[in-house]
Amino acid sequence: MAQVDLRHWRLGLVGFGNVGQAFGRLLLEAEAELRERHGMTVAIGLLATGPGGTVTAADGAPPGGGIDLRAALRGEIVDERPSGRAGALAAIPDAPIDALVEMSWFDPVAGQPATSHVRAGFARGAHAITTNKGPLAFHGPELRAEATERRLGLRYEATLMACLPVLALRESAVPVGTINAFEATPNSTTSFVLDMMAAGHGRGDAVAEAKRLGIAEADPSFDLDGWDAAVKAAILAQCLLGRDVRLADVERTGLDAVPDGEPAAAAAAGCRVRLVARGSAAGPVRVAPERVPAAGLLGGGQGTSQALAIETGLAGRLEICLVEPRIEQTAYAVLMDLVALNRDVSSGRIRPPQG
Amino acid sequence: MAQVDLRHWRLGLVGFGNVGQAFGRLLLEAEAELRERHGMTVAIGLLATGPGGTVTAADGAPPGGGIDLRAALRGEIVDERPSGRAGALAAIPDAPIDALVEMSWFDPVAGQPATSHVRAGFARGAHAITTNKGPLAFHGPELRAEATERRLGLRYEATLMACLPVLALRESAVPVGTINAFEATPNSTTSFVLDMMAAGHGRGDAVAEAKRLGIAEADPSFDLDGWDAAVKAAILAQCLLGRDVRLADVERTGLDAVPDGEPAAAAAAGCRVRLVARGSAAGPVRVAPERVPAAGLLGGGQGTSQALAIETGLAGRLEICLVEPRIEQTAYAVLMDLVALNRDVSSGRIRPPQG
Repeated sequence: MAQVDLRHWRLGLVGFGNVGQAFGRLLLEAEAELRERHGMTVAIGLLATGPGGTVTAADGAPPGGGIDLRAALRGEIVDERPSGRAGALAAIPDAPIDALVEMSWFDPVAGQPATSHVRAGFARGAHAITTNKGPLAFHGPELRAEATERRLGLRYEATLMACLPVLALRESAVPVGTINAFEATPNSTTSFVLDMMAAGHGRGDAVAEAKRLGIAEADPSFDLDGWDAAVKAAILAQCLLGRDVRLADVERTGLDAVPDGEPAAAAAAGCRVRLVARGSAAGPVRVAPERVPAAGLLGGGQGTSQALAIETGLAGRLEICLVEPRIEQTAYAVLMDLVALNRDVSSGRIRPPQG
Repeated sequence: MAQVDLRHWRLGLVGFGNVGQAFGRLLLEAEAELRERHGMTVAIGLLATGPGGTVTAADGAPPGGGIDLRAALRGEIVDERPSGRAGALAAIPDAPIDALVEMSWFDPVAGQPATSHVRAGFARGAHAITTNKGPLAFHGPELRAEATERRLGLRYEATLMACLPVLALRESAVPVGTINAFEATPNSTTSFVLDMMAAGHGRGDAVAEAKRLGIAEADPSFDLDGWDAAVKAAILAQCLLGRDVRLADVERTGLDAVPDGEPAAAAAAGCRVRLVARGSAAGPVRVAPERVPAAGLLGGGQGTSQALAIETGLAGRLEICLVEPRIEQTAYAVLMDLVALNRDVSSGRIRPPQG
């Protein structure tokens, strides 16, 4: 297969926790395939970690150069700039990067500092990939407009229901016509808790077990009160329906609204209770607990699976389900975004990398 | 969003039955969106119908010209060449076409004349889109090699389980890493018959009802004996696993192997019987009736739904289901292929249209 010339991408990794390190390992693993199948080479021009501070590549991150990813994965990269938020933000304007990969923590109040990172990247001409829901849930429409204005890409596959390829599906499977509605079970912690309750456990026991297994956070309210599902619903509404919906616009009902006996009663009726997100072309985007058939898409998933159905104008109803997602798959979604950026450069939609 | 210059595609439509006419209507409906969103204009340079014979565009099918699709949909295009197989085949070499859309009937014995149509198109530099499973099931690897050699595209989204976006998913959702295995329920007629049997109907009654509803053909053996599922399994193995698997290589067991009482017994055990296709990186590709959980992907679909699961090396297990596909969605798959051809021209993978 004929290929275009190799195109070099200098990446800035902001955040190097579980997802960031998994992405780093994946980049090393995929190096040959990125080059041979997609015509891309990659080097790390900036690495911002919590404990290690922020480092920029002294050599400008040419092909084969840049920050030593293997050493970083061994924890051997030392601080060269003040660490913390100001460190990354201060380093971005002068760092040798073509795309910023924003993987820092999610702040549910304002979407910061992630949004500032993305904007600082845009200002110096860097495309953005974010695994962080904050920038989209709080400022998605403005960031999209700014990216379009600057001919830059803004990719966020990992924010859309772990790594269900929602963005990829919308672009390649629905290239023409509209998406009229979606329904989804975007939060797996609540599915786990509801299934434990259906099996006869008390609510408190179910939540404690979810914490013990690492499925729920130490403070589980972000999941149980529907905030996580609402954030995802806002991003789905932006991406699939093209609507300007923010977190504050989503009507949100949490698990408090589910009576103790309801999950077991639903099970006896061949159903499950799920925290369901729904949106359509007009009207409110909603997150609320619902009884759904155990044999259908929304109630059929096992364990921590996540499901999405879209109703299209021309292609009928499409259902997709990701089974038991793991951290490696979030990192894989970042890699999908990177390949998509390279494709969009080829088609002239966004500007080429300068590396 | 900046766009590349408009690119003009002259299409040859071979076959203008239900799918071909649905595609024609879709082209008219999508005209503005193809131009504005994807930078494409389209005209018809060749139209081969059964009753109307084969017509080529006298004006060379420039933008805004070519064969009048609206008139053709009204049945007003008259024969200008000898009709039938030789007609289309003889017309292709001199027709003004950049892509051949092969939608003629499926011959389960040799994959002809569809394969000859595709090859004749290749010989004159035309990309190929086929809704016809014959060329792939019988000659897929050779046709792919010839397309690659000539820098031409060969797209076949509609052959892969109606219009589940299998090809699109493989390309955009699994851009790196391998697919290790698939399982699918690619034949909806057998699902319908098995569910009727589970509900207490006799086998003969179930088949008769499927015929009455137009779900089964007058001769239902192609579905019931597993041939249709085996054809699709071969194409799935080629597309997803990159294996050279032909129809003759697929191990095939039909509904004859299902005892009369088995669907009802399965239902009583919380299961359904489905004709399941399975393949992996090595070993036989198989089609056979199986008991599958009614709450899972393969047994969970309603009515004539079709489901597919792929096990990827890096992205986990991905499940996808198309609910109650209709003829318009097969036509939509052709449109997806056309947009994908245009995208692959942009990325330099295949040669540009000459129109």
